[in-house]
Amino acid sequence: MAAARLARTRPTAVNLRAGLEAVGAAAPDPAAMLAAARAFDDREVAAAAAIGTHGLALFRPGTRVLTHCNAGWLAVQDWGTALAPVYRAARAGLAPRVVVSETRPRLQGARLTAWELREEGVAHVLIADAAAAHLIQRGEIDLVLTGADRIAANGDVANKIGTYGRALAAAAHAVPFYVAAPLTTIDRGTATGAEIPIEQRSPAEVLTVEGVDEAGRPARVRIAPEGTEALNPAFDVTPQRLVTGLITPVGIVPATAAGIAEAFRRAEAARHPAG
Amino acid sequence: MAAARLARTRPTAVNLRAGLEAVGAAAPDPAAMLAAARAFDDREVAAAAAIGTHGLALFRPGTRVLTHCNAGWLAVQDWGTALAPVYRAARAGLAPRVVVSETRPRLQGARLTAWELREEGVAHVLIADAAAAHLIQRGEIDLVLTGADRIAANGDVANKIGTYGRALAAAAHAVPFYVAAPLTTIDRGTATGAEIPIEQRSPAEVLTVEGVDEAGRPARVRIAPEGTEALNPAFDVTPQRLVTGLITPVGIVPATAAGIAEAFRRAEAARHPAG
Repeated sequence: MAAARLARTRPTAVNLRAGLEAVGAAAPDPAAMLAAARAFDDREVAAAAAIGTHGLALFRPGTRVLTHCNAGWLAVQDWGTALAPVYRAARAGLAPRVVVSETRPRLQGARLTAWELREEGVAHVLIADAAAAHLIQRGEIDLVLTGADRIAANGDVANKIGTYGRALAAAAHAVPFYVAAPLTTIDRGTATGAEIPIEQRSPAEVLTVEGVDEAGRPARVRIAPEGTEALNPAFDVTPQRLVTGLITPVGIVPATAAGIAEAFRRAEAARHPAG
Repeated sequence: MAAARLARTRPTAVNLRAGLEAVGAAAPDPAAMLAAARAFDDREVAAAAAIGTHGLALFRPGTRVLTHCNAGWLAVQDWGTALAPVYRAARAGLAPRVVVSETRPRLQGARLTAWELREEGVAHVLIADAAAAHLIQRGEIDLVLTGADRIAANGDVANKIGTYGRALAAAAHAVPFYVAAPLTTIDRGTATGAEIPIEQRSPAEVLTVEGVDEAGRPARVRIAPEGTEALNPAFDVTPQRLVTGLITPVGIVPATAAGIAEAFRRAEAARHPAG
């Protein structure tokens, strides 16, 4: 019951479901369930760290990265996904610079990613979502890097609304577009992105903006006339042909069925080493 | 002095400059200057009305139009540019439906276009800017229609930041992308979009959002940690190959040097009818 309710909170994402299943398999023994949850957490932390290690290969000194939403340690344990390679690059002295799209309607970029990057001491600059394609066009972005909520078996990527538009712009200007994710984000039971349900959230998220007032207190403003209707698709699907590669804990693989099969083979081999 | 200062307020747009030049040519006689301003205004009103008449041809019953920023009568006298065909279609009983992108950072879509469409009784729905490409991908948009701040001699279009991303998405899904503008927006002295200066506005516009509080009073919230840096390019350039056509007061023409030359020929012929 509780697991079903939690799963319903994120119909698009798939890691939460994997975690719930791992814990549910240990039911009803509370100690076993807690141990399963801790083991799942440990695996996710190790996966995020490994994503950082593999993604580091995409960085040169001063690489300018465009990201979207929050895929750092506020979202994914310890390292994050898309930001894990950025943090590795920063610690390696490569001085990456991150262009953060604000990510309306919930502003995860402005509110979470900008805060997290400041805590990490990584150079960054905030932009309105609508400015991303322009900066790519002007040659101001070397690499687009996002996380994913679900990756289909063919490599299609569901991620925060706005990701698809960035992928189109990156492709138009031959800027590499990488998606960082643990293998738990890859749903081999979903053939293509067309099968991924897109969560429709409350119109109120579009009609209002949350922030802080001049005194630093949480505040909310309404930005449209009262009674205005709004549409709020929370995710979109980027077709695999626009994805340069998937940064996984077992290496960077093509966003194709073959690339994904290869990633799972490597993970399996790591769990059961031959000889 | 005053004209130069006014011109500097909109380095990207070109109609304002044309109006200032028309008035300046009548200087220093105040009455002549006022008459010149009124004549310029009359021409712009007539141009907007004619844009509506020509653009109506793109509408079928229930056409779903994606627009961006505000190009209605709050921005351009009496009819607007991009919204002029929408209003014509509504009055013709075609029941158009407008998807309004909020247009961060200044939210002209949410604050102006949504209000204007409500006043006109035109069905509309607000979206976050990041949702535009997704809706186009899902087949929920029949026509993308924007105004322009400046059109280069080759047909490249400078318009509100975010326009280029919409044009890329429209092209990817074969959705027509039209730009509505009076001939005063076409700057034949600018060869291509690369020559159009892109105004960089205050980072504060990105870092804060203006709206109203629960009591309906103007209010502003900060959306990012204090001290966050922001980039705020206010316009972008859409290359002419992504523009299906220009809706001008003298008809719909291709967004090419030849199409633009044809528009000016028609305008000239209308001013000086042969025989």
